[in-house]
Amino acid sequence: MIQNFKELIEKAKKNPKIVAVAAAEDEHAIQAVIEAKKLGIADFILTGDKEKIIALVEKNGGKIKDFEIIPTQSFDESAVKAAEITGSGKANAIMKGLTPSPTFLKAVLNDKGLKKEGSILSHIALMSVPGWHKMFLASDCAVNISPKVEEKKIIIRHAVEVARKLGIKKPNTALVTASEVVNPKMKDTLDVEEILKSAGEFQDVFLGGPFALDNAISEEAAVLKKVTHPGAGKADILILPDLSAANIFYKSLIFYAKAESAGIILGAKSPIILVSRSDSEESKINSIALACVVS
Amino acid sequence: MIQNFKELIEKAKKNPKIVAVAAAEDEHAIQAVIEAKKLGIADFILTGDKEKIIALVEKNGGKIKDFEIIPTQSFDESAVKAAEITGSGKANAIMKGLTPSPTFLKAVLNDKGLKKEGSILSHIALMSVPGWHKMFLASDCAVNISPKVEEKKIIIRHAVEVARKLGIKKPNTALVTASEVVNPKMKDTLDVEEILKSAGEFQDVFLGGPFALDNAISEEAAVLKKVTHPGAGKADILILPDLSAANIFYKSLIFYAKAESAGIILGAKSPIILVSRSDSEESKINSIALACVVS
Repeated sequence: MIQNFKELIEKAKKNPKIVAVAAAEDEHAIQAVIEAKKLGIADFILTGDKEKIIALVEKNGGKIKDFEIIPTQSFDESAVKAAEITGSGKANAIMKGLTPSPTFLKAVLNDKGLKKEGSILSHIALMSVPGWHKMFLASDCAVNISPKVEEKKIIIRHAVEVARKLGIKKPNTALVTASEVVNPKMKDTLDVEEILKSAGEFQDVFLGGPFALDNAISEEAAVLKKVTHPGAGKADILILPDLSAANIFYKSLIFYAKAESAGIILGAKSPIILVSRSDSEESKINSIALACVVS
Repeated sequence: MIQNFKELIEKAKKNPKIVAVAAAEDEHAIQAVIEAKKLGIADFILTGDKEKIIALVEKNGGKIKDFEIIPTQSFDESAVKAAEITGSGKANAIMKGLTPSPTFLKAVLNDKGLKKEGSILSHIALMSVPGWHKMFLASDCAVNISPKVEEKKIIIRHAVEVARKLGIKKPNTALVTASEVVNPKMKDTLDVEEILKSAGEFQDVFLGGPFALDNAISEEAAVLKKVTHPGAGKADILILPDLSAANIFYKSLIFYAKAESAGIILGAKSPIILVSRSDSEESKINSIALACVVS
């Protein structure tokens, strides 16, 4: 497993990929694109309003010749074009620029785009907390509101796929709830029980739960709580029970624990980079690097 | 508002209270009791197995003469006795020792104990995160699994009561969900909408929501996300949507952000101190101090 985001970026640089950007005429996106190109993480194919893109590249200290620009006339066309380029294999990952999210996702999930049968989209976050002894993955902090058991299984598969690409052969995967005990009154713990009944479906994954957060991440807390599961306290992946818990968890790490993060969306044929305006510049670069390493 | 736990302890010392302990023959409880007594936060009435209590007090460096000990023959009797002592006003708060939680709570919630008509119990945590600009309250991280709207209103009232005792006249109270937008697919946001319809019931409270965690606690994030509520980014109290979100939030602060905390249970006639074996010594003392300040 990598130890920090510098290592993630080094890993991405060793095998640079191509990222298609839908409607790149967005200053936040362009800044990240220029920086990622400078670092040697990826090359970019930019769709969108060519004049505006050129102006933004120049304004932000980039070189026009570094980028392939495909002019398009609308957000819809930008999204469709970027999805087709990625779907055809000319790019390895896709990134949202100024396109509105619904337009972007519609194009991505089209048959001619990146639709993957039998999957759902899920968000995965790679986190590095200052002073914490290792990096870890958390899901799903951004997409699925109240995933059902079958959807949670797909969320787990996506997270495991990312962990493998980051060098963990058999990731310790903790199904986190409010308690380490199955309680009929707590639906999240029943979901975990249900998932674990089909644990055999997951190969080379060390799946455990329910864990409360403390005994998922701290071996000392697991001992104190007498949680004897061999994966207790050692989670590489935290599967949170629903969007409320996951999103609040994610944001508490960013704000209170000053965590650094990367986030991508999986479940399509290629990774999706959908950074938010409120993400730090650092986190946008990290997300591009993660998408490239995973693709 | 106090700035740190040292101030909380100073506040408690200015007006020392009496705490009744149910089955004090518990080493973790006794250590906290001895330390709280030494600090001058509270006096204690200890129910339970007298010989064992005396042995534990001596073993842990306390003075027998510092404590009133009421011998009892069973956990049930210890709990009932401690609840009656508190209910009669001889003590200001009650603390669980070795009594099992169900036995303890049954005695507390008895008519002769501390039952309060029309209320429910809820947990409130006071948190201090290193590097964060202020202390804040969070609820309900430990008791209510999926509180309904009417229960959430009681949870809010309890939290506001604590904030007032800590010196905040009109606490900024943020109803936190996964999003700052009401979304019919997200039940938590609908609950917030419902609660805010009866915001008039809450006097001298600055109630707002739904907030995502970032725009509840960071004015910068609120500006970025265009959340214009005047309380945005300034929460003194975070009301989390359910136990999964709240418990995971609380533990993420303790473990990743190295937060210091105090926790008590409200909703009975007097505050309830129900510390866990896994709580730090520091946190147990803080919880006793908080109960004393609030009582």
